[in-house]
Amino acid sequence: VVIVGAGFAGLAVAKGLRLSPFDVLVVDRNNYHLFTPLLYQVASALLDPSEIAHPIRAVLRRSPNVDVLRAEVESVDVEAHTVRLAGGSILTYDHLVLAAGSVNNYFGAQGWAEATASLKFLSDALRLRNLVLERFEAAAATPDPVRRQSLLSFVIVGGGPTGVEYAGALSELIHGVLKKDYERLDFTRARITLIEAAGTILSPYDAELREAALRTLAARGVGVILQSRLAEILPDRVRLDDGREFAAGTVIWTAGVAAAPLAAQVVEKPGSHGRVPVSANLTLPSHPEVHVIGDMAEAPSPSGPLPMLAPVAIQQGQYLATRLRSLVATAHDPGPFLYRDRGIMATIGRNQAVVQTRHLKLSGLPGWLFWLAVHLSFLIDFRSRAVVLLNWAWEYLFYDRPVRQIVTAGSEPGPASPL
Amino acid sequence: VVIVGAGFAGLAVAKGLRLSPFDVLVVDRNNYHLFTPLLYQVASALLDPSEIAHPIRAVLRRSPNVDVLRAEVESVDVEAHTVRLAGGSILTYDHLVLAAGSVNNYFGAQGWAEATASLKFLSDALRLRNLVLERFEAAAATPDPVRRQSLLSFVIVGGGPTGVEYAGALSELIHGVLKKDYERLDFTRARITLIEAAGTILSPYDAELREAALRTLAARGVGVILQSRLAEILPDRVRLDDGREFAAGTVIWTAGVAAAPLAAQVVEKPGSHGRVPVSANLTLPSHPEVHVIGDMAEAPSPSGPLPMLAPVAIQQGQYLATRLRSLVATAHDPGPFLYRDRGIMATIGRNQAVVQTRHLKLSGLPGWLFWLAVHLSFLIDFRSRAVVLLNWAWEYLFYDRPVRQIVTAGSEPGPASPL
Repeated sequence: VVIVGAGFAGLAVAKGLRLSPFDVLVVDRNNYHLFTPLLYQVASALLDPSEIAHPIRAVLRRSPNVDVLRAEVESVDVEAHTVRLAGGSILTYDHLVLAAGSVNNYFGAQGWAEATASLKFLSDALRLRNLVLERFEAAAATPDPVRRQSLLSFVIVGGGPTGVEYAGALSELIHGVLKKDYERLDFTRARITLIEAAGTILSPYDAELREAALRTLAARGVGVILQSRLAEILPDRVRLDDGREFAAGTVIWTAGVAAAPLAAQVVEKPGSHGRVPVSANLTLPSHPEVHVIGDMAEAPSPSGPLPMLAPVAIQQGQYLATRLRSLVATAHDPGPFLYRDRGIMATIGRNQAVVQTRHLKLSGLPGWLFWLAVHLSFLIDFRSRAVVLLNWAWEYLFYDRPVRQIVTAGSEPGPASPL
Repeated sequence: VVIVGAGFAGLAVAKGLRLSPFDVLVVDRNNYHLFTPLLYQVASALLDPSEIAHPIRAVLRRSPNVDVLRAEVESVDVEAHTVRLAGGSILTYDHLVLAAGSVNNYFGAQGWAEATASLKFLSDALRLRNLVLERFEAAAATPDPVRRQSLLSFVIVGGGPTGVEYAGALSELIHGVLKKDYERLDFTRARITLIEAAGTILSPYDAELREAALRTLAARGVGVILQSRLAEILPDRVRLDDGREFAAGTVIWTAGVAAAPLAAQVVEKPGSHGRVPVSANLTLPSHPEVHVIGDMAEAPSPSGPLPMLAPVAIQQGQYLATRLRSLVATAHDPGPFLYRDRGIMATIGRNQAVVQTRHLKLSGLPGWLFWLAVHLSFLIDFRSRAVVLLNWAWEYLFYDRPVRQIVTAGSEPGPASPL
């Protein structure tokens, strides 16, 4: 079994196939699994990378039948049952699991990937953190009030959970922490604006929770512009499709994702978001030995295609491991994948979150406590839990975000041993 | 007062001038103060950057007369009393404090800065960590045994405290942690070699402590080659000056430091290590308003010029702050700077350190416990202490180094807003 991608979906398969008769190889371009729901906290200077990223080899350590390879997958040939890696190596498989996740979707806009920051990968989050901190250093140093206004103006594109959570966290970083660092800077000039093309933010939530989220954002000084799209990104400002222009030195893109480009190689007609339409048992209809799960898969359900969410990915991975095991052990097919929706949640900074499950709707402090407990329990190891809890407690008590160092590794000329 | 550099020396001055009549500006190219004695632990995947790097603005927060500027100093004109920043801005001063620290010294060898990794700045440590982890990924993936031997061979140049401490930490990372990650790799082929030009490692220590350190390194599988110099660095091996060659895919340079290049601008004849010879009160003889402290200064003492050590830098900074205050308050000069030598120490991995003070010589476990207590007490804030202690305890109990993610920020094309 070759598993492409060690995100929530791929890792769930690998864990589920532990001590099974299968010879499993997990291929990922990174050597870590990323706990993406807390990525925005790295980008807002609250957590260090190691608290939300875990070495894949450590997670899968006590699995003698599971091996890990750090490599980029270049192409897949479903007819020949091969996977080609960057560098030219070829892997062959009996079962292929495609779980390469998703990438940012700029809807074809030229140059926006370069002109915006994003929040998809760990390197994005570190870059965004450095960028925000550098903006304030530059604002403190410039004598030009127009330039300063641009430097202090942040635009977040997209009112989904990532955009809303980052808006709340950025507001806390700016007004709770940086305000104390830059005593001579006028923080009433700092602007965070959230732009959403639809008529509402957090569209999967009920109206009362969306209203609560909007009130919280307003209370934190985040301006929300609905039913507007970004038309143009200029060096010091943005223009919307209705012609409005305003100052913006930093644009953060959270407005859309699409399946990883690998999806286009295994299907002629991609589904929504460029995903691979799969059967109810998560295989390619034409190739039952090719399984597609997680953000890459468009899986059917009674209420339409399943959303691109971590819980869907985890449950699909678990289902697939069980299915593969029972195919070998009993030659019995366990039937189609059924998603159990345990609910959705989003936090909007200190003491505020919205939680929606089948039986429960929470906002404000109760929602936040619920969010806290769930996220802590899902972090992978005890050390991360303890460090994350300590960072959260520190920030909560002292309004301080400790990870404010502007650090890069690799941008300067590095040790050039060409091995 | 303009202070160039927020290392141990510069920060001690800024803290000492808190709530004084002086108008103080601290200029540093980074926005953080780095606790350099633990840098090797970042490079060996034990600590995250935020645990040893602290935002300068946060450290100096409750000081209304102290301001911070993140900028690179390009040149100093001691005649005109001006400091020119990269970008062209000019600062003027009444008192100038030069505390820009030191840089790696390659003794004129061409290309070695590019061919070796180093352990001087935070970005170096992150790069070295990524590099070591990548070597093991590549070794696990290559079918070529010669290439694998190079990838698994690490050479550390320099037997001072940095080299010895990193050798011990790297050995623990490899044999304690990575061995469990790469079960199919033959770890008896992993090599760490320490090369020292002098006849002994840790030369400032007494013979019995040096012997203890050598025994510990041998027990941890670190080969030590004394009285040898690096002659050539080839892509897959190194050659020594006596003609010996051996496999080496990664060369780590800890063999020498020199004063920051700024030193050459204020003195015609630099002292040892390119430092600025200063009077007993740490000023330039020709310019009593220019103070040079820390690694940049060659300060006199009864036993010769003071060494380039963190305690010297801290005490010089404290002395200078006191002196400036009393010059203003009482017009009384407190006399020359006297260094109080509280001792030196170095750790060589788990349970092993050497400590030498005037009254005390410790090695092994007692030395290690002493080292632990001293370093924890010097870390700047409570959160860092707690997180560092937790990471140390985790590694100690589980032989695990948690910060093993290969992460870079900034090497990929970044958000290009040209503000």
